[in-house]
Amino acid sequence: MIKRLLSKRNVYFDHNATTHIASPVRSIMNRVMKSYWGNPSSGYAKGKMSAQIIERAREQVAAAIGAHSHEVYFASCATESNNALLKTVSDHFYPEKNKIISTPIEHPSVINTLEYLKGKNITVQYCPVDRAGHIILEELEAMVDDRTFLVCCMLANNEIGTVQDVKKVAAIAKSKGALVFSDCVQALGKIPVNVKELGVDYATFSAHKLYGPKGIGAWYARISSPLIPFLHGGHQEEGMRAGTESIHNIAGFGEACKHINKLVTAAAKNQSQKKIFLSELKTMKEDLIINSPMDNCLTNTINVSFPGIGSGELMKMLDYNGIAVSAGSACSTSLKKPSHVLKAIGLTDEAAQESIRISLGIETKDKDIRYALKVIKQYIEQNK
Amino acid sequence: MIKRLLSKRNVYFDHNATTHIASPVRSIMNRVMKSYWGNPSSGYAKGKMSAQIIERAREQVAAAIGAHSHEVYFASCATESNNALLKTVSDHFYPEKNKIISTPIEHPSVINTLEYLKGKNITVQYCPVDRAGHIILEELEAMVDDRTFLVCCMLANNEIGTVQDVKKVAAIAKSKGALVFSDCVQALGKIPVNVKELGVDYATFSAHKLYGPKGIGAWYARISSPLIPFLHGGHQEEGMRAGTESIHNIAGFGEACKHINKLVTAAAKNQSQKKIFLSELKTMKEDLIINSPMDNCLTNTINVSFPGIGSGELMKMLDYNGIAVSAGSACSTSLKKPSHVLKAIGLTDEAAQESIRISLGIETKDKDIRYALKVIKQYIEQNK
Repeated sequence: MIKRLLSKRNVYFDHNATTHIASPVRSIMNRVMKSYWGNPSSGYAKGKMSAQIIERAREQVAAAIGAHSHEVYFASCATESNNALLKTVSDHFYPEKNKIISTPIEHPSVINTLEYLKGKNITVQYCPVDRAGHIILEELEAMVDDRTFLVCCMLANNEIGTVQDVKKVAAIAKSKGALVFSDCVQALGKIPVNVKELGVDYATFSAHKLYGPKGIGAWYARISSPLIPFLHGGHQEEGMRAGTESIHNIAGFGEACKHINKLVTAAAKNQSQKKIFLSELKTMKEDLIINSPMDNCLTNTINVSFPGIGSGELMKMLDYNGIAVSAGSACSTSLKKPSHVLKAIGLTDEAAQESIRISLGIETKDKDIRYALKVIKQYIEQNK
Repeated sequence: MIKRLLSKRNVYFDHNATTHIASPVRSIMNRVMKSYWGNPSSGYAKGKMSAQIIERAREQVAAAIGAHSHEVYFASCATESNNALLKTVSDHFYPEKNKIISTPIEHPSVINTLEYLKGKNITVQYCPVDRAGHIILEELEAMVDDRTFLVCCMLANNEIGTVQDVKKVAAIAKSKGALVFSDCVQALGKIPVNVKELGVDYATFSAHKLYGPKGIGAWYARISSPLIPFLHGGHQEEGMRAGTESIHNIAGFGEACKHINKLVTAAAKNQSQKKIFLSELKTMKEDLIINSPMDNCLTNTINVSFPGIGSGELMKMLDYNGIAVSAGSACSTSLKKPSHVLKAIGLTDEAAQESIRISLGIETKDKDIRYALKVIKQYIEQNK
């Protein structure tokens, strides 16, 4: 039975799934859609102006991730970028080298691509992670061999918030002659990201996790790393990604990246909100399981299991009360399988299916937290 | 030497490269960006509203092409759609069947993908076309054999405007047990397109050729045709195209498709403008070569060669006078190679490099035509 428990308030707690589009981002997208719609590949003035918009955005994205602008390539989303890099790099090295080491808590766009590659004779091994989701570096060291061409490790996990020590991962990979790929989608805008400091060869990003538009992503490829086209056709993106550019989406991504420091700073506020949230939840439900790590974790991400309460039921109740949260990754919520991330950190199927993810954002107010806590508390008390 | 010849007027004659975004399209995109940014994969109200926006757009696109909405899949662009279908369908049939028949005048996103597939053991044969670019059906009939799994023929050519008899192409393919793929990007919005009447199994479309946004395309796949994911990850688009949807772009595509009949009707106006343009050009330059066919051609597309005048020089002069035209496909203008399309219809390298494409649109005015004709006339007279 779903009941409205308090005077309703709309609270969006699913910033890891997607964010709203910030007003200055929408502004520039509008301007571009209205005035800069020429084909960037065309030789006349109208086309060249569009090309300039793209190059300015490329510089803005590059600045946000500590790269040179000619190391940044736009694609339609991070999923495309992950598919493109993993598949073409595999094609490049196979059959001389045939092994990728990754982690069992990668995003579905990485995991499912790796599983696809298994069918193409690529050996994929998943390095174990600890109870907090952190990759076990000693295990990684033992796994990387001279047939390994790529180590693939996300910077921040979307479901539980675990931040990996990608710098150390990269050092291990390099010492064995392997390249390093990092899905940085969930990290950018929440923690500082500098691809040079991380020491990775490839990294991927998405605008819609940082108050930019949906339908635009980017990948970083270090200058000397192998790069092979995935989409064939025109010569866009230096021949590396064919297809007429979504100029307004690209401009929106650039604008979102201009505000990256502000976003990262805003995450500090989330830290104290998260602390209050967790301690209050623990008080109202003593057997609460906290799935997000205490250390090296995104400050906005709270993943918890409520023993005895199915996450579907809880989500529905929260939705009815205006509160948007998710069970695991938004990309897999319509599937009934327990989250592969929660399974990998050792949760039972049951505990995994009792988990919800609350992900805060820059506009999250303390009263949003208080409202959600009140709703959850009443629900727990009524269902005791 | 570039000189301004008349009081300048901005004239856009490159609608085959891209179109502006129509005002009602921008309007709905804005509304979506502001209010419907929830992740469509999410189970809560905000996500479901986004999913509804997508499904409405899917119905609008389906209606514009005569398909059922569950046969329409969104992708980031037509290039991605062409890559996805050609590569996955090849993967599906290989090694049992290994041959694709296509035409030598396909768009680069088809030709370059086919060339890539050659390296993956797919036999690709190009059926000859006549001087007007029309596929020679008797040749096609002789080429399709029991190892052929796909016949790939565009509906309308982007460079010269040739409209193919895809219905007959499909009948030939089917009689030999091959599937049919048609790149309909340049046709939609210019001539009526009905995938059922054409009898194709797959077709691809792009919003930015019909006054919709850049960065969104769609493919049609007949219900029983093989369909295999190209991008792996989340379960979006029935598991056939992973990646968070660009909701505003999709909504814009849907809105553009709502006006499809108006667009096709407007093409009638282009027909008389094209006639005037061609006859005046012929008068001012007797040795003008008309590369667009007289019959079965897009009404907006005028491809001509000016013997003795390099297209680069002519384009620059026109651009300086505010007139945007292209030399061949916008996707290949930065390459110095003569157009593969013009070569295929029998032009010499020289004539191919003296050709320009003028593509009219729904907002083209008679005075735009007169202005362009005056500019070209003065230029020709000054360079005699």
